Amino acid sequence: MFEKVLLSEKVANNIKKMIIDHELKPGDKLPNEIDLAEKLNVSRSTIREAIKILISMNILEIRRGKGTFVCEKPGIAADPLGVTFMNKKDLLLYLFETRLIIEPEMAALAAERASQKNLDRLQTVFHKMKEEILQGKDHTETDISFHNIIAKSTQNPIIQRIVPIINDSIKEGYQETKDIPESGEKVIIYHEKVLEAILQKSPQQAKHYMREHILNGMEQISRK
Amino acid sequence: MFEKVLLSEKVANNIKKMIIDHELKPGDKLPNEIDLAEKLNVSRSTIREAIKILISMNILEIRRGKGTFVCEKPGIAADPLGVTFMNKKDLLLYLFETRLIIEPEMAALAAERASQKNLDRLQTVFHKMKEEILQGKDHTETDISFHNIIAKSTQNPIIQRIVPIINDSIKEGYQETKDIPESGEKVIIYHEKVLEAILQKSPQQAKHYMREHILNGMEQISRK
Repeated sequence: MFEKVLLSEKVANNIKKMIIDHELKPGDKLPNEIDLAEKLNVSRSTIREAIKILISMNILEIRRGKGTFVCEKPGIAADPLGVTFMNKKDLLLYLFETRLIIEPEMAALAAERASQKNLDRLQTVFHKMKEEILQGKDHTETDISFHNIIAKSTQNPIIQRIVPIINDSIKEGYQETKDIPESGEKVIIYHEKVLEAILQKSPQQAKHYMREHILNGMEQISRK
Repeated sequence: MFEKVLLSEKVANNIKKMIIDHELKPGDKLPNEIDLAEKLNVSRSTIREAIKILISMNILEIRRGKGTFVCEKPGIAADPLGVTFMNKKDLLLYLFETRLIIEPEMAALAAERASQKNLDRLQTVFHKMKEEILQGKDHTETDISFHNIIAKSTQNPIIQRIVPIINDSIKEGYQETKDIPESGEKVIIYHEKVLEAILQKSPQQAKHYMREHILNGMEQISRK
């Protein structure tokens, strides 16, 4: 039994290596069990064990009725900070304190480096969010998208990964209180100011309005 | 087979919930298989499957000859940013750019909030690192510890998790080039300045010297 665990882990590492070496790319379908078993010279049950390991590491995913695929962002865990296991007291304020450090600087970098594709995407998402707010719909997802696109616009792969982790942690830790209390009007204004600054390639303005936006959020939380 | 996977995942969630509810705490030994199987009303093989899932999620760990334990920081993945799978080009500079955003602010918060225990620990690690440098030994681990203790001193659990993730990513992504080129003398001076500022509870000074330290590191990398 112990031997078998070790072998399946070894096979899991082999498959991981195929991804690192770009033999398999994000989004690719995994070859079928029989071919893999033959290629790696192990039994099909070992392949299945290895696949299970890689699924729980968020490297592979099963798409029902379609097969096993390499994840789009392999190796990114669902709750990498482990907020599920954290003391919830003041957690939301700590999440916002961290955002206050990173996101104004992130917005400044985005103003310098955003591609035309980033800018188009940011405008689209802003207008979608505005619509949702004006129609009284839940705008949580588009709001998070807006911030994640700005993270993407920095072209820095570490910021691109960390910022969504923090913003998703807010969802993860606060599934019960979905709405961070902030008036819809203010949300629109702050996001519009940040958007304009990035469009105008003005790092200082982008930084300023992102800071104001997050400080305003923190104020709302403290008041709650 | 499909049913069994689902059942073991359900059991894994049950065990996870026991940790969230503090029925099991970080560092605790897991009850034995037989008791768990009885308590959760499933077979021992399902318990074993569930344990495997939780091990690969870094929630449980096996200590050889001792049994299965709840991890000290349950749910923290080994490489949560997935740097293993990233394009290595410019990655080190992007990691340092991210540190440049977070760590000066982190040092300022640490200067405001460090406990006496944090300060003692920081001094101890600084002196250990200084010794290692003067003796020509590898100081990578103590250097990372120094930064991680400052992260801890912010008392912000999100910063406490993110900063080690970034710093460990440097190790993860650059196992081949262990030494970030920086003269030992400069390393000592910058760390000493940061340490003094935190001891004197001077946020502005702590921020300033941390910034200088990281900028100096970036310069060394670019020059390489």
